[in-house]
Amino acid sequence: MAEPASALSVPGFSPTPASVPSRNVVYRRPMPKNQPVWQTPLDPINFLLRAALIYPKKVALAHLDVPYPVSYTYDVWTQRVQNLAYALMEAGIKPGDRVAVIAPNCPMIADAHHGIMAARAIITPLNYRLTKGEIQYILEHSGAKLILCDHEFTHLLPERHARVIISNDTGREGDPYEDFLLSGRRFSKEAGWLGLPIEPDENAGSCLCYTSGTTGRPKGVLTTFRGSYLAAVANAYETKMDLYSIYLWILPMFHACGWTYPWAITFSFASQVTLRTVNYTQIWKHFKHSRITHYCAAPTVQIGVVNAPQASHVEQPLRAIIAGAAPTAHLIGSLEKIGISVSHVYGLTETYGPFTISYNRPEYKDLTLDERAVFFARQGHSFATSDEVRVVKHDSDNKDLVDIQKDGVALGEITTRGNILMKEYFRDPKATEEAFRGGYFHSGDLAVWYPDGSVAVQDRSKDLIISGGENASSLSIEQVLSKFPPVLEATVVARSHPKWGERPMAFIILHPHEEAKWKGKEKEFEAEIKTFARMSLAGFAVPEWVSIVKELPKTSTGKIQKNILRQRLAKL
Amino acid sequence: MAEPASALSVPGFSPTPASVPSRNVVYRRPMPKNQPVWQTPLDPINFLLRAALIYPKKVALAHLDVPYPVSYTYDVWTQRVQNLAYALMEAGIKPGDRVAVIAPNCPMIADAHHGIMAARAIITPLNYRLTKGEIQYILEHSGAKLILCDHEFTHLLPERHARVIISNDTGREGDPYEDFLLSGRRFSKEAGWLGLPIEPDENAGSCLCYTSGTTGRPKGVLTTFRGSYLAAVANAYETKMDLYSIYLWILPMFHACGWTYPWAITFSFASQVTLRTVNYTQIWKHFKHSRITHYCAAPTVQIGVVNAPQASHVEQPLRAIIAGAAPTAHLIGSLEKIGISVSHVYGLTETYGPFTISYNRPEYKDLTLDERAVFFARQGHSFATSDEVRVVKHDSDNKDLVDIQKDGVALGEITTRGNILMKEYFRDPKATEEAFRGGYFHSGDLAVWYPDGSVAVQDRSKDLIISGGENASSLSIEQVLSKFPPVLEATVVARSHPKWGERPMAFIILHPHEEAKWKGKEKEFEAEIKTFARMSLAGFAVPEWVSIVKELPKTSTGKIQKNILRQRLAKL
Repeated sequence: MAEPASALSVPGFSPTPASVPSRNVVYRRPMPKNQPVWQTPLDPINFLLRAALIYPKKVALAHLDVPYPVSYTYDVWTQRVQNLAYALMEAGIKPGDRVAVIAPNCPMIADAHHGIMAARAIITPLNYRLTKGEIQYILEHSGAKLILCDHEFTHLLPERHARVIISNDTGREGDPYEDFLLSGRRFSKEAGWLGLPIEPDENAGSCLCYTSGTTGRPKGVLTTFRGSYLAAVANAYETKMDLYSIYLWILPMFHACGWTYPWAITFSFASQVTLRTVNYTQIWKHFKHSRITHYCAAPTVQIGVVNAPQASHVEQPLRAIIAGAAPTAHLIGSLEKIGISVSHVYGLTETYGPFTISYNRPEYKDLTLDERAVFFARQGHSFATSDEVRVVKHDSDNKDLVDIQKDGVALGEITTRGNILMKEYFRDPKATEEAFRGGYFHSGDLAVWYPDGSVAVQDRSKDLIISGGENASSLSIEQVLSKFPPVLEATVVARSHPKWGERPMAFIILHPHEEAKWKGKEKEFEAEIKTFARMSLAGFAVPEWVSIVKELPKTSTGKIQKNILRQRLAKL
Repeated sequence: MAEPASALSVPGFSPTPASVPSRNVVYRRPMPKNQPVWQTPLDPINFLLRAALIYPKKVALAHLDVPYPVSYTYDVWTQRVQNLAYALMEAGIKPGDRVAVIAPNCPMIADAHHGIMAARAIITPLNYRLTKGEIQYILEHSGAKLILCDHEFTHLLPERHARVIISNDTGREGDPYEDFLLSGRRFSKEAGWLGLPIEPDENAGSCLCYTSGTTGRPKGVLTTFRGSYLAAVANAYETKMDLYSIYLWILPMFHACGWTYPWAITFSFASQVTLRTVNYTQIWKHFKHSRITHYCAAPTVQIGVVNAPQASHVEQPLRAIIAGAAPTAHLIGSLEKIGISVSHVYGLTETYGPFTISYNRPEYKDLTLDERAVFFARQGHSFATSDEVRVVKHDSDNKDLVDIQKDGVALGEITTRGNILMKEYFRDPKATEEAFRGGYFHSGDLAVWYPDGSVAVQDRSKDLIISGGENASSLSIEQVLSKFPPVLEATVVARSHPKWGERPMAFIILHPHEEAKWKGKEKEFEAEIKTFARMSLAGFAVPEWVSIVKELPKTSTGKIQKNILRQRLAKL
């Protein structure tokens, strides 16, 4: 029963003595007729019902940094979710229908990750940083029958659209979204969970997330109840979430359904704190005062976290889950120095977010940070509930995939299959067939494969730089450049070259305190960083051009948009 | 990356620097034709293959307290498992066939929990404390096609039986079991895991464990690959097993397949230490020198653990998983005092062993040990991968089950359903139908239900006697005693015993013509009937006390009121 001393310090945690009865709510849903007694369809909504049953008075969700802060205990939040499910059904939503959500991290989008599925509909979260045209395309392509839209993003709605429910993010009566929930409450006629049958087919669609497809139109990634369940369990286990965990929503929940953390949180009875924006002042306030134990973010956001003026040592165990790009030794070191441990995971929207993790090895303890970071930067091995990652010959025409050598040198494409893989690209059988050729999903990520079965992404296939006929990995070059002391962040893309075909070009953001030093001395900086790079990189991989910049184009999830950089260069 | 200091102290842990390649083994099995890319049948054997891939040089299994100690790393052990699978196939075992195992905790029975399933056959572990007649019944009823038998238990084999492979538990060449494994190695023709297709139907039978049924003959509990997978994940998560865990096999692995820990261990990359017998000297040696972190045992064994002369404070985090009966405050206190934390779980063979856990609550920290123990003695709530426990009106004739009041007072029967529930009683559709009436499995255990949804067993099935952690069926004992010529009627109930928890007490009504003969010779009668009983009953089932009575309390319909007998004994 030994537990961390922070146990009772959960914000808003109001322990109810077990002798005080909670309301006598039934947290059970009807099973399909003829369902075997010994089998229940896998459905992550059951995690929420369990949490409400077992820890009704524990804080499920806190939303604090807004004009109308709210905090919901599990019993209250679960009732809201139930209201949402009934409201959707009352609004005509049928099983399998798509319900779109355009919202930052806030209660509505957290509700939506449960209430929509509880109505057996498919949640379709939209990236609110897309253009109006892209939003329109996705709303039309998904055929969403209803839209839950945060008040800040109504301008994104196309002229003709399905019914919209607007949330003013107040949690108060009179807020259209709150009134919508109340309509569900009335419609339910107090049938409660017994009026909401469980989805009988665990392979039915649960979520439809659109990739920010760099090659033309966004593609809709359709996932299943079964996959959402198994991915959430793996994420909770791998990042050691439990009753005492408090998750901070820095990662936008719309991104691959928050990497299945909406359900990993309820699986482990954790609490969550929602942040509308990435605001380092707020983040550090919560790190310091809300005993946050877990958060997910891409390396660029992590760099912002460690370099924020408020950054200092955190008292509680705090785990940063990093994906999107491999963390550098410098970043890992900076995080560890202030008490933040790091889990490096990897995945795509097509794999429910993370499906591999760079496993720790006991023998790493004897290594220096730089040595350790080399191993840690690998994408590692797939989760227990996924199948093995395979790295196959990239341009193989064979229907039978051919594994590359497990030598850490040969380059191939990451493929996977199994329960943590999307069911299809929605309404795009051609793209699905292409992605699933040979019986494996082709990620488009190029990697080397080590003898121990771990993989290390070298590049997106499209980010690879073909320099003088050699493959230069932009990520490897970035790892080297990041070690040059003045550098805060380095990004490398291919730029066409009359002699070599392509050569690497580096975009550098300096540490703020270095900026003055190098002002007007760009040539010297370029010479110095090239000298530095030559010590560890082959000639063809040393950047031909170096540009100091103030900022870089990024996606909503913090990934640098190399396609935009390349487009800019192409116009030069 | 912060990990306990014990990380490198794993016994026999031989860290291989990541730069040293392991053998280039493929840990992948062929998928069924037409299997969707996005779905893999749930199969816990995949956990073993992952462990071998990721931590090949970590100790998987150590068997030390024997004349021929052995220790296998994950790569070596996984090869043994593969050899066993091929050896079984070479011996004619087909998917769905039953393979019996009669063995104490040792490498063979650990191998069997993986190799038999890898051959897509059904493991049937036998309780070696049963009588020869019971063993014969189970071997015949299960239709086992092959028997893996430890050398110590060959005397239990009936005269006519299927092919037997004997293990001398040496791990050395010349041991018949080892030669059997080698036959598999030769038969495999090095096809490796690619020659062993995964079981395409996750609902296929995985294990067949026999209960010591309360109503006469043992019943065969058939479980599935899917259930074994989901139960193992829940057990690993709930008891916080991970890479640094070392599990000590005190619980006999034949008990409900070791409560799915054979797969919970591989899921979490833990190590395991096998003990042939419950020997407190050995147990404490391992607690002190092998950095054991987890073990399972019934309260009677736990009492032995804390009262052993070697008992003293353990340095590493050590978790005792208790089931079989609720731990008392005294026991919890004694364990905690020496640094052993307690997880109280509950289940039956029909539920893969544990499927509920008494959840900790943060507010318990403010309670005294005695207060805490009251809550902790509850059986609690079901695991995340199971369905909710329901307590229903016990003798309801209704097909629709009726929940009892959640008031902690009303008494009902524990029922459950879902993925952690057996598929059927093997070859006994009538018993299956009876157990599954109303769409729920009826446990036969009477419990109260609290407002928070937790359950507390009041009478662990009214007739069962938990004698030294073994289930002794009173009816089976009565059947034996009734065969003793002087006996007219025999009734057996549990009576508490300071060492064994409970022991059977027999109440005997003599044939009228025998009464005079035994008058004043009660001691002789007791000795004779015990001798008689020992010929057909396991030691734990032989009555400890025998009382000759004139009559027994009966209901109007002639049923003996055992509850009244127990109440009388409780007052003694």
